[in-house]
Amino acid sequence: MSLLVTGSIGIDTVEAPSGKATEALGGSSVYFSCAASFFGPVRLVGVVGDDCPKGFLSPLEQNAAIDLAGLEVRKGSKTFRWHGRYHEDVNERDTVSVDLNVLGEAGATIADKFRDSEYVFLANTHPALQKAMLDQLDGPEFVVADTMDLWINDERESLLDLVGRLDGIVLNDSEAKLLTGEPNVVRAGRKIVQMVGGFVVVKKGEHGSLLFAADDVCAFPAWPSTEVVDPTGAGDSFAGAMMGYLATQPSGDVEPLRRAIAYGTVMASFTLEQFSLGGLMGIGREDIDKRLAEFSRITRF
Amino acid sequence: MSLLVTGSIGIDTVEAPSGKATEALGGSSVYFSCAASFFGPVRLVGVVGDDCPKGFLSPLEQNAAIDLAGLEVRKGSKTFRWHGRYHEDVNERDTVSVDLNVLGEAGATIADKFRDSEYVFLANTHPALQKAMLDQLDGPEFVVADTMDLWINDERESLLDLVGRLDGIVLNDSEAKLLTGEPNVVRAGRKIVQMVGGFVVVKKGEHGSLLFAADDVCAFPAWPSTEVVDPTGAGDSFAGAMMGYLATQPSGDVEPLRRAIAYGTVMASFTLEQFSLGGLMGIGREDIDKRLAEFSRITRF
Repeated sequence: MSLLVTGSIGIDTVEAPSGKATEALGGSSVYFSCAASFFGPVRLVGVVGDDCPKGFLSPLEQNAAIDLAGLEVRKGSKTFRWHGRYHEDVNERDTVSVDLNVLGEAGATIADKFRDSEYVFLANTHPALQKAMLDQLDGPEFVVADTMDLWINDERESLLDLVGRLDGIVLNDSEAKLLTGEPNVVRAGRKIVQMVGGFVVVKKGEHGSLLFAADDVCAFPAWPSTEVVDPTGAGDSFAGAMMGYLATQPSGDVEPLRRAIAYGTVMASFTLEQFSLGGLMGIGREDIDKRLAEFSRITRF
Repeated sequence: MSLLVTGSIGIDTVEAPSGKATEALGGSSVYFSCAASFFGPVRLVGVVGDDCPKGFLSPLEQNAAIDLAGLEVRKGSKTFRWHGRYHEDVNERDTVSVDLNVLGEAGATIADKFRDSEYVFLANTHPALQKAMLDQLDGPEFVVADTMDLWINDERESLLDLVGRLDGIVLNDSEAKLLTGEPNVVRAGRKIVQMVGGFVVVKKGEHGSLLFAADDVCAFPAWPSTEVVDPTGAGDSFAGAMMGYLATQPSGDVEPLRRAIAYGTVMASFTLEQFSLGGLMGIGREDIDKRLAEFSRITRF
């Protein structure tokens, strides 16, 4: 199945207890594409400014599985920038600065050759913009979106409009509680299933994830990482592997979803072991499958 | 194998969003014994004062699998009392009041007929008192202890002395980090394995648990509970089911340990569904095995 992602491309500066990455390639669609590319081709739709240094996008350009026909370099605009600082406990972070730049302008135009995309992932951005992306597509088969607390608080109506058009949604535990007003994350997930009509993945970072689909709730621990260098992009890598794997499967049933989430868990664990895309650059599909098998072994009883 | 537990017996008052239990039966050895009793006989060693109301201990007295020969009713002493209040998010709680009473006096004497116990669980108390219990036994085969932040902070040397004599230890994630100074819980668990020389279970409440044994790390989510009424005693029920199951197995290998932790997870999930021992009183072994099978199903991929 053809897989398309729309999301941010950013210039990230990350400070963490183990070091610092300055002006490194980041953004939701970047992590997503690199993760999905281990499973098959992926179409990237995103916008950067003309301030991008030469070679900055080479990890995308050199990846034959990532189709960049939807990448717009907008003249006179500046690329999205984010600067974050992780605490000694790397599960906590502060945003030092954020410059929306081109992300605050008009959204991307989806290239004609991408309009027939069957599997679509709308990475986190304003829900009206996510909907505008969806409107440019010729009735995709399977649409999943990410969101964040900002939109749940400030753009609830727009978000609920979008949610009704999705097959699945991926969000954090705190976001799931915020969206539903439910302090119990399992009840929150079950409520969101009713809203979506499809499946819900609640990500809990170092504590794993929960999958909700119809009346079913499945639970997954995280990979037990000992070297957490930079968790930036772990959630987008999770989504990329999940969707990348699902796009190779016949349907959106619960069985392939479970395995898709296990692949997401493993992919996230590679991402956080190095700064920026480092953790995804030096590995192959065989490393991913090896860790998946080990993940299966250590969670059986 | 014979299984013995030493720990507290208490008069608990618990306030939670869904109601209140006043002067209910609680304490680590009580939850442990009830949980372990589903798997086989368990010997309880603990002390109460002579202020215990008539019939207060009937859930223990009416359980044929719990041997109360080690229960001391101390004349002129008062029973341990605890009053806790859970937040709207029931994973958080405050202690309203705690009266050590008899727990601040001399420890229990282990009855002669219990000295040959093979499997022993030392529930959380002062590590010197845990060691004194161990000294009264005729070289048990398999000894596991629980501890808490108070002893890690104030009685570290005494605790480390005890740790060297254990086959396993059970503690919370925050306690594992405190004991080792490691912010990463997986590295913390690995370090404690070196200290114990046996296995380590790190409990993460609603986020499940981690098992460390030699170089292996296994990860378990929690049961996805929707009705969390009162989490008091969930950790002790976890330990009770874990030890109860292990005592039916030939050895302390990792394989039975994994299944023991799954049983612990399921037992904890029953405990938190009602106040006090309510969640463990109305169920049978078949309910536990049914939930274990379901837990296995929802964690496979």
